[in-house]
Amino acid sequence: MARVTPPTELDPAGYAFRHAIRTRFAETDAMGVVHHASYLLYLEEARVAWLRHLDRDYASFRETGHDFAVLEVFTQYVSPVRFDDVLLVHLAVSSAGRSTFQIDYLLTVGGERRAMAATVHASVRTDGRPVRLPSWVAELSR
Amino acid sequence: MARVTPPTELDPAGYAFRHAIRTRFAETDAMGVVHHASYLLYLEEARVAWLRHLDRDYASFRETGHDFAVLEVFTQYVSPVRFDDVLLVHLAVSSAGRSTFQIDYLLTVGGERRAMAATVHASVRTDGRPVRLPSWVAELSR
Amino acid sequence: MARVTPPTELDPAGYAFRHAIRTRFAETDAMGVVHHASYLLYLEEARVAWLRHLDRDYASFRETGHDFAVLEVFTQYVSPVRFDDVLLVHLAVSSAGRSTFQIDYLLTVGGERRAMAATVHASVRTDGRPVRLPSWVAELSR
Amino acid sequence: MARVTPPTELDPAGYAFRHAIRTRFAETDAMGVVHHASYLLYLEEARVAWLRHLDRDYASFRETGHDFAVLEVFTQYVSPVRFDDVLLVHLAVSSAGRSTFQIDYLLTVGGERRAMAATVHASVRTDGRPVRLPSWVAELSR
Repeated sequence: MARVTPPTELDPAGYAFRHAIRTRFAETDAMGVVHHASYLLYLEEARVAWLRHLDRDYASFRETGHDFAVLEVFTQYVSPVRFDDVLLVHLAVSSAGRSTFQIDYLLTVGGERRAMAATVHASVRTDGRPVRLPSWVAELSR
Repeated sequence: MARVTPPTELDPAGYAFRHAIRTRFAETDAMGVVHHASYLLYLEEARVAWLRHLDRDYASFRETGHDFAVLEVFTQYVSPVRFDDVLLVHLAVSSAGRSTFQIDYLLTVGGERRAMAATVHASVRTDGRPVRLPSWVAELSR
Repeated sequence: MARVTPPTELDPAGYAFRHAIRTRFAETDAMGVVHHASYLLYLEEARVAWLRHLDRDYASFRETGHDFAVLEVFTQYVSPVRFDDVLLVHLAVSSAGRSTFQIDYLLTVGGERRAMAATVHASVRTDGRPVRLPSWVAELSR
Repeated sequence: MARVTPPTELDPAGYAFRHAIRTRFAETDAMGVVHHASYLLYLEEARVAWLRHLDRDYASFRETGHDFAVLEVFTQYVSPVRFDDVLLVHLAVSSAGRSTFQIDYLLTVGGERRAMAATVHASVRTDGRPVRLPSWVAELSR
């Protein structure tokens, strides 16, 4: 099975796409900062925005009977994100195989690094069966 | 359309069923207390536990092509619920019509009232079309 | 205690402010539509955007020792909202008292009504003690 | 900085503690299964239950001015978890350093493996400053 590799690129310029998200109050916790699980929602929102940017609208993509299942997630929390922060999620396809690929993420606020993350996805039919990765995904791999 | 009526029963003994939930840290917010939206998750968990208690397992019920859609929600926050509190959700069917019914809720911690709520549901096919309320729901109305 | 009143204004033009939110995949549920609890997150995000629009940044407002606690919520679900829909949240202060006020909401997608909602808030110190409603809130009441 | 290591122990008997969680409908998504971000809530609930089991109640622990910050998370999704499944979260401290430690998790439903996970935590003061790991944590490392 594909194994997630922690991302190493610390420079936003090394990422192909970026998406801005303003954090919600509901996403904070009693420590006064954004809860660590909320970051996965930001990664997903950024992936969907990136597919739209590529004219690969995710809702339409799913209607064609394809999907990208999440196989693995890695997150590293560098320093806290707070309510109402505008978080930039920088992302890039870092590797691609026959039916899986990895996306790397760098999360910044005001130019400062707050977190790193990576997700490994499988190319599947909506019934879950694996299928060959679309060539346009493989071509995005840097 | 059915209109939710704020519940008035303040005595736990006036409710047919109760379900205990320990609050999660992720459900709190930067005010240090449970976020107001989390209460809707507690109401839903209590409804599912209540259906199971009635031998009307919700997952199986949905597999028969039926569902209970949420039409309206009312919540009143009386005093805060905190992380790791054991919340008792007391519930009862308070009214039932041809295809809709209302559930009332009283939420307590350590015997003290923390919130009141009510939800109005429609009896529907899983495709969303309304159908007559099952008789066993109507019979639960107090 | 203040009692929430279901909103009656069905015309977007009757609301002072509007805020657009694209729904997230994580906010859907196994019925294939946005889960009913997610709407409360949209109402909150819209309130924060509205305060920012009024130069009453919520994060800064909380730092002055003030807060707006949620006392009551009413939501009415008219028709489903789906993943990747761009939801417009229209809002207006519908009434204001000595220390509480109500906000009304109309939620639309593509010009069609999807939900109505209302929230009642208390003006409080961050320690929870009620204080007189700031005059700028009372003046917003239509 | 500590670096999370994917867990390798596939046998529930290799874990010191287990905690049962019934999944909520709200935790599913439009794929009809539990959303991948919900698993982080299950890991956290299991950690809190484990601390309680050790007489190290997390709410009280935080009141002493200590906390365990989340530094890194790794999750591997093996096969889907569905609504109303009773998920067993098996956990163990897999390593401990001067101020950090890793917890490994195996998630099963009906005896079948559904996911693996690991979290790396820092021992901190509630203001975020790192402090030496309490000896009772280090002693739990297998």
